[in-house]
Formats: sequence, structure tokens, C-alpha cells
Amino acid sequence: MGRRALLLLLLSFLAPWATIALRPALRALGSLHLPTNPTSLPAVAKNYSVLYFQQKVDHFGFNTVKTFNQRYLVADKYWKKNGGSILFYTGNEGDIIWFCNNTGFMWDVAEELKAMLVFAEHRYYGESLPFGDNSFKDSRHLNFLTSEQALADFAELIKHLKRTIPGAENQPVIAIGGSYGGMLAAWFRMKYPHMVVGALAASAPIWQFEDLVPCGVFMKIVTTDFRKSGPHCSESIRRSWEAINRLSNTGSGLQWLTGALHLCSPLTSQDIQHLKDWISETWVNLAMVDYPYASNFLQPLPAWPIKVVCQYLKNPNVSDSLLLQNIFQALNVYYNYSGQVKCLNISETATSSLGTLGWSYQACTEVVMPFCTNGVDDMFEPHSWNLKELSDDCFQQWGVRPRPSWITTMYGGKNISSHTNIVFRRSFTMLPRLVLNSWA
Amino acid sequence: MGRRALLLLLLSFLAPWATIALRPALRALGSLHLPTNPTSLPAVAKNYSVLYFQQKVDHFGFNTVKTFNQRYLVADKYWKKNGGSILFYTGNEGDIIWFCNNTGFMWDVAEELKAMLVFAEHRYYGESLPFGDNSFKDSRHLNFLTSEQALADFAELIKHLKRTIPGAENQPVIAIGGSYGGMLAAWFRMKYPHMVVGALAASAPIWQFEDLVPCGVFMKIVTTDFRKSGPHCSESIRRSWEAINRLSNTGSGLQWLTGALHLCSPLTSQDIQHLKDWISETWVNLAMVDYPYASNFLQPLPAWPIKVVCQYLKNPNVSDSLLLQNIFQALNVYYNYSGQVKCLNISETATSSLGTLGWSYQACTEVVMPFCTNGVDDMFEPHSWNLKELSDDCFQQWGVRPRPSWITTMYGGKNISSHTNIVFRRSFTMLPRLVLNSWA
Repeated sequence: MGRRALLLLLLSFLAPWATIALRPALRALGSLHLPTNPTSLPAVAKNYSVLYFQQKVDHFGFNTVKTFNQRYLVADKYWKKNGGSILFYTGNEGDIIWFCNNTGFMWDVAEELKAMLVFAEHRYYGESLPFGDNSFKDSRHLNFLTSEQALADFAELIKHLKRTIPGAENQPVIAIGGSYGGMLAAWFRMKYPHMVVGALAASAPIWQFEDLVPCGVFMKIVTTDFRKSGPHCSESIRRSWEAINRLSNTGSGLQWLTGALHLCSPLTSQDIQHLKDWISETWVNLAMVDYPYASNFLQPLPAWPIKVVCQYLKNPNVSDSLLLQNIFQALNVYYNYSGQVKCLNISETATSSLGTLGWSYQACTEVVMPFCTNGVDDMFEPHSWNLKELSDDCFQQWGVRPRPSWITTMYGGKNISSHTNIVFRRSFTMLPRLVLNSWA
Repeated sequence: MGRRALLLLLLSFLAPWATIALRPALRALGSLHLPTNPTSLPAVAKNYSVLYFQQKVDHFGFNTVKTFNQRYLVADKYWKKNGGSILFYTGNEGDIIWFCNNTGFMWDVAEELKAMLVFAEHRYYGESLPFGDNSFKDSRHLNFLTSEQALADFAELIKHLKRTIPGAENQPVIAIGGSYGGMLAAWFRMKYPHMVVGALAASAPIWQFEDLVPCGVFMKIVTTDFRKSGPHCSESIRRSWEAINRLSNTGSGLQWLTGALHLCSPLTSQDIQHLKDWISETWVNLAMVDYPYASNFLQPLPAWPIKVVCQYLKNPNVSDSLLLQNIFQALNVYYNYSGQVKCLNISETATSSLGTLGWSYQACTEVVMPFCTNGVDDMFEPHSWNLKELSDDCFQQWGVRPRPSWITTMYGGKNISSHTNIVFRRSFTMLPRLVLNSWA
């Protein structure tokens, strides 16, 4: 099967490869993150202070005394020393300012909870680089990019805030995060319950490890979103892969495809797998931002974007060329809703605020999430989960090999019943504010 | 004050310096451990298998793939696949076989709980050396000697046992430990509640960090043991320090002291602080093994050994020389109860089964326990807690500096109310078996 086998399934969570050429298997566990902005476009400019806290590069060893500056944002407009609280965003794999601007939920509840909002940047992302420009140089410099180190950063930062901000010391802190950040929020409450009274974990796939859930479940859910958003929509997508394969068999077919999809660069036969990955990832992204309101998280989009997409994908039983023209119209909803885009670039699917390199490393070490597709229960090309191949690719890219069972060992897998005050939700929008009020 | 200031107070927990010359400040936080043998001397030979499990040297980083063999002992004579349980000894700072032979409580309850007994050796102690003979070479090799790594070892080992021993998979595991091992047992339940249903933590000073308790409290308790064990006993000891100082002012005094205390090597004036430390540590050790029955943990001893000691210390208002002769008689109870010892060696206070070097490093990094004495509330020479000096000594000895607040950040200090099923007890003997039965 070789590298191809891994490609598609790894796309299951969106991978912002941006312009960086990663080995295919690596971009694909991709950067998983979710949009958490419950308000409509355009986002209101948020008012916060940008601060830095000196963190130890290694909380778990004493051989290095190196430190780095962790960036964090504080918004205290509605904060009250008396009866207030602290909402602590457990930063995930990207620039914290971007997350800050896209986590409307926290801004929405700040006044009600008299809350100070704190957004802590995850090490190795944004400006919080332990070794500056050398942070991604090799496995030695990347050695401190783990969830455990990130949680320890959060703990030290909270201690610092409580120690230095008069009135903060005895206030309840609530961890909040989405996607990987949601896992971090949940894990933070599990491991540091003395630091936070509770955690809101939105879209946090804490069971997407080992065999805790079937590897195909995520792509099946994505497919369901499309199936329910328009007649024959998922079926059209399912048919499109073979259509692409057939069209790309000839030079003229490739040329035609390039034009039909309005691609910025001419396709070669070597690009076809990449093209299909990019399209798959687009559908996954759409499923993750399929909000009932217009939004602008990964891209500017209308309300219920998949419904809009599916308007172009009503008929799977057309010629290959017509099907692909329809696919283009659908892609165009995601990439060109503003109408300003001249051509589509298959090396980009989402914002560059996400940290591609860091996430690629994390997916190669701790955050090993098995994904697979079979083309039957889902609308994607079939790909099995291949740990061996991932491991070899990781070793070639980073000089490390994944430890797929470590997260379960560390955080308990499904056996988490002894923990309290962790709320898992699909997104922040559905989160009852009552819960926060009861904790704060 | 210099080095002297730290000396005595650090002795608060017994320090098995053995024959290794450590910097004074370092030996002294010493190896804290407790005797857990509730049965009388001699200990029955235990029947167990010695096994090894391959552990990662670094659970928290991916740059090294090095592994080492962790030793563990298994006794399954009374274990039942149906309705049985697993008692898991969270090994502390010494040879696991020695702890195994001195943790009678586990052997006592094995049959009742149909329990498999597992004794896991702590990394960097006994045979479980991550880098073999080089393990203590420098701070780079010692970098993986932390409580967090040890807990991760335990988690991986339990997973291994459950995976490989038919019938063990769904059985409840209970963590058990004493002293530092008691802290580990408690912390293990806090951090890995999915691994163990509960923890028995005997004599586990989890609050002996930062300012969670007054630094003098431990030595005050030791003093109380002596004060209550015989009239004027603690007062005699309190007076002895100045008596030693006066006697050691002259060459003939030193010679006399050497003879009166039956020391193996002649005292010089440079040895006097060391002599007083050694005596102090002896009293501390006695307090830790002051059982109502004869026992043999640190030394062979009679029942209520402090009462026996205090029979020689009834009169503080005697001449310096008579006081010191009495002190010798008292020391002799501890060092020569068997009557076989020809002279007393002030470089030894306890068994060599304890890992001096490893504990010295741990006391210089994570396990920073402030101790102090004032000579008023306790019977020892006054010494304040001096972190700066400890830090400098640690840096000189190991090239590392302590992080005195880390343990509290990591394990919660006094804010541990969200955890369940952790029983703290003075010793195993007082532990109601009912609790274990309710968990198992």
C-alpha cells in the first residue's frame, strides 16, 4: 500500500499543511480543532492584554534550567474581585490570539460570571516557542512538546496569576477548551483538580485513541452530515473519487481537471492523491464548521454551509466531467464564499494560524488517533489504519516513533468515572451556562 | 552559618549515608522511610518470584528510546482469579526485596483478600537502574529520577500485568506504600485513578512541603516520643549537645569521648558536627521504629525501644561525662541490641538497602521537605530551614537546584478533597482491613 494508504484516512481531522511540504502521512492526523464562535460574522474585535510568563522548558526533569516565555491573554473588563471567577482557555495547536478571537462563548459569559478571561498559549505554537526559531529543528528541541508539559505550564501559570493578581487567589478557575484544547481542559481537571473546579471540553475526542472507538466513526459522522444536508449529496462525493481517477488517466484529462477545478497550478499525475486528500479535508472542515449561522473560523462561510454545498451535489449519476464541475461549485462555497478568490490552492485548506509543524510532531508521538474509511459506511476512499507506516513516516520526518497507548495509560481512556465536573459537549454553543454558574 | 546550619535540621528524616561521603546538606533530608512490619522478629522468609519489566527511561519525552529493566516481585500463593485482587506496593527509595520482606501487612492480608502481591521497585534504586552503573554519574543520567516517572512506571507495569496474567485484567488494584512510598501510593491514586481503586498511604508526609506544615513539627513529634517514654529523657538529650561541645574542646576530651561512646574511629574536632548529626538521626530513627513489639527493620530492637533507651536518660543534671556515658548506653540499645557489635560507626545509622545517592538527588530536586529545630519545642540543636544553602549544596553535588514548590503544584498540597479512596495512616498496623475489603 505504501504511503498512499495512510493519506486519506489521516485527513480525517483537518490538516493545515499550509505551504509547508510535510510527508503525507504526517500532515494528515492533521490539526484537529474546532470552531467555537457562536456569534455570527464578523467577529467583534476583542479587548485583551498580551502578557508573558516565564516557564520552565522541562517541568519533569532538572537537567536543563532553560526557560521560555509563554504568551497569554487576559481580558478583565467584567471581572470582579468579589464573587468573580476565572475562565481559563487551555490553548491548543495554534496562535492564541486566533483562538481568543474565535472563542466567543467565553466573551459571551464573561459578564454573567464576573469572569476574568485568560487565554494561555500552548507551548510550541504562536509565540510560545521554547527554543525560538530552533524549536522544530530536531527531536531534541521538540522533546518538550507534550500534553503533560502543556498542562504543567497551565498549572504554573494559574499559580502565578493567583499569586500576583490581588483578588484572584481564592477565585474558582474553570478550564475551557475545544478539540485538542478540549482534551487538554478535561485532562487538566483530571490531573490538576486542585487547580480548576471544573472543565468545559467542547468537541474533545478523548476516546479517539487506540481502539476505544471504531476508527471509522469520525468519517462516518462527517458523511452523515452530508447525507442529511441534501439528497444524493454524500453519494455524489463518494462517486467523485473514481471520477477523478478516470479523468486523471490522461494528460488532457489532467489539463481539463485543472481548469474545471480552477486550480492555481496545473495538475500532474503525481498530484492526484494530494488533490483527493485536499478535497476530503475540505469536506471534513465543512463538517466541523457546519454552523446554523454565518461564521468565519477556517473560512468565511454562510449559515449551514453543507446545505449550500449540497445544492451542487444533487445528482451522482452524471458524467465524470459534470460531476467534477459540480464538485468545483461545492468546493467554491468553502474556498470562495467571499467571491474574491481567483483560483484554488490545493496546498491550503484552513487558516495559517494553526501550527502545522507542532501538530505533526504531536500526532507522531502522543496524539495518535486511528482513523479509517471504508467507502461504504462513509463517502471517502477506503483506507485502513496503518500504525507501522505512520511510525516509519514519523521516524523519517522527526526521528521519533509514536506511542499509541500512552495517552490511554496517562489519561485513563474510558475509565474516567472517578473524575468530576467535566462537561463534554459538541460545541460551546450548546453548553448550559447553568453549569458554569454552579461552579463559579 | 554555612553548611552547619543545614546539618541538623536535615537529619529530621533518617539519612542512610552509609559509607558514602555526601555533602552534609545532602544526606540530611535523608531517606525518609518507615518500618511497616507489624510482626515480631524474626521476619518469616517470604516466597515470591523476581521478575523484570522493560520500561521506557523517559515516559514524558520522545527523544530517547532507551529502556531499562524494572525489577518487581510477585507473590501469588493466595491469589484467586475469581474474586481476587492485586495489592501493588509502590516501591520507594531502596532495594525492593528489603521492602518486600518488611511489609508484613501485605503478606498478612493476602489470604483474606485472595490477593496477588506485587512489589514494584522504584527506578534508580536496587537493581532498577536506568543507566546501570552510570545512573548516578551526572545530572543528565539522573534526569529521569522523578516521582512522575516512577508513577508512570507503575502505570505501565500494572497495564502489563493485566494484559499478560490471565484473570488479572478486571481485578481491582490497590496501591500500598509507606513513607515516600506512601506519598507515591497516594499520588498514584490521585493521578491514575483509572489504574487503582484506592491507596493505602502509611506515614506519608504529603504536606511536608513548602509551608504546608510548620517546619519544626516533625522534630517536635520525635521529641514528644522521647518525653513521654521516660522522665527527663528528652531533657537529657537536649542537654547532651552542649556537653558534647564542651568535651570536644580539648584533645583529651575528644579522646575521652571516642572511648566513652565506643566509637570505631578516633574523633577529631572536625567530626563533632557529624557526631551530633549521627546521634540526632539515631533518635529520629528510634522514633520511627518505636513499635510495641520487637522488630528488625533498621536495626534489631526490643519492643518500645524508646522506653528502653530512656531508662538510661533519667537524669539530665549530671556531669557532662556522666551524661555522655548515659547517651552511649542509650545509643547502644539501637546499635547493639544483639550484643554483637564491637564499636559504633558514626557513618552508619541504618540499613544499606536504602538508596542514599538516589534519595539525595531527589531531595535536591522535587522532594524538598523543609525541616527545622529550635531546641525549645524540640530536644535538638536549633537550626533554621535554609533553602539557599540547600540549593547551593545541591548544585555543587549534582548540578541541579531544587524546585521547592513543584510537588505542591503537581500534587495539590492540602487541596486534595476531590480525590477519593486514599487512606492515610500512621502505619500499616493501624489500618483497618475493612477498608481494603470494601475496595477489593
